[in-house]
Amino acid sequence: MKDDADKAVLQGLKKYVNLVQDDLLQPKPRYLDAFFFPNEANITKLINYLGKAQKSMSICIFSLTNDKLANAVYDAHARGVKVRVISDDECMNQIGSDVKWLAGQGVPCRVDSNSQFHMHNKFVIIDDTFLITGSFNWTVQAGKSNQENLLVVDNPYYIEKYSTEFENLWKQFASN
Amino acid sequence: MKDDADKAVLQGLKKYVNLVQDDLLQPKPRYLDAFFFPNEANITKLINYLGKAQKSMSICIFSLTNDKLANAVYDAHARGVKVRVISDDECMNQIGSDVKWLAGQGVPCRVDSNSQFHMHNKFVIIDDTFLITGSFNWTVQAGKSNQENLLVVDNPYYIEKYSTEFENLWKQFASN
Ligand SMILES: [Zn+2]
Ligand SMILES: [Zn+2]
Repeated sequence: MKDDADKAVLQGLKKYVNLVQDDLLQPKPRYLDAFFFPNEANITKLINYLGKAQKSMSICIFSLTNDKLANAVYDAHARGVKVRVISDDECMNQIGSDVKWLAGQGVPCRVDSNSQFHMHNKFVIIDDTFLITGSFNWTVQAGKSNQENLLVVDNPYYIEKYSTEFENLWKQFASN
Repeated sequence: MKDDADKAVLQGLKKYVNLVQDDLLQPKPRYLDAFFFPNEANITKLINYLGKAQKSMSICIFSLTNDKLANAVYDAHARGVKVRVISDDECMNQIGSDVKWLAGQGVPCRVDSNSQFHMHNKFVIIDDTFLITGSFNWTVQAGKSNQENLLVVDNPYYIEKYSTEFENLWKQFASN
């Protein structure tokens, strides 16, 4: 009898431990990184992250003039990854912009259409699995000379929020 | 005898469950947020986050011209929070910059000293507890008109990385 009572108490406790655990814990991240510029090695780091894409790559980038990064985007497109690029209209028309080149290679690209304001985001969502975001534009100067940051994260909360924003902007800029 | 053997097996299993748990799980975040611009309500959201500061506020911001945000920084300083601001030298000297105003109010401020390159980060670490980072400059236009993002995160991994970067830049710009 006493044993049965103990068992019941233990089972009750076990239930609560599980509840607390569900409430307080979550899976550890697989993508956990943060890196800073100026640092040319961190361009390679970013290229390696782009190289991981197997299914999709959704890019919002204000300025894209770094040919190494543009090539990494093209490579993903060429190996069958669903690549989409949203950029800023004025930046796209500046000398050295790689957005028109990517569009010419068949990569779907869209831009905002307001000359006064900016599509100023700089983020990329890869395989709906991890997000890279921060201050870093994909330019040579930003990597070589500016103080910049990028953060890599895979918590599904952020992936969902940024993916939704990407899809909203993609629709909003449909005619551009 | 059989019971004792069962107990040993169970205890062994329990040990492995604990190990796997430590390896795969971590505490759930208390600060988990992401928001986008243009959206004036999200300026208020950012101000509310700044209002949470009780001990420290380490800010790296390329451009700071939004008076509401400058006031939120000043308020933190006035209530005894250890506020420090790192900004960009050219931005600081532009009309409407609030960095000089904050410095005049006694808030420790430093800038880079390279007219060609930019201290282009836009992040703030609050109470060594959570980080807000993204593309968003603290300007009126960025909130009202640009496409921008901010992410709020409290994983200690990021806090440590961004704090280290902040301290490095603070030292690097000591003479400015
Ligand atoms: Zn624009
Ligand atoms: Zn500068």
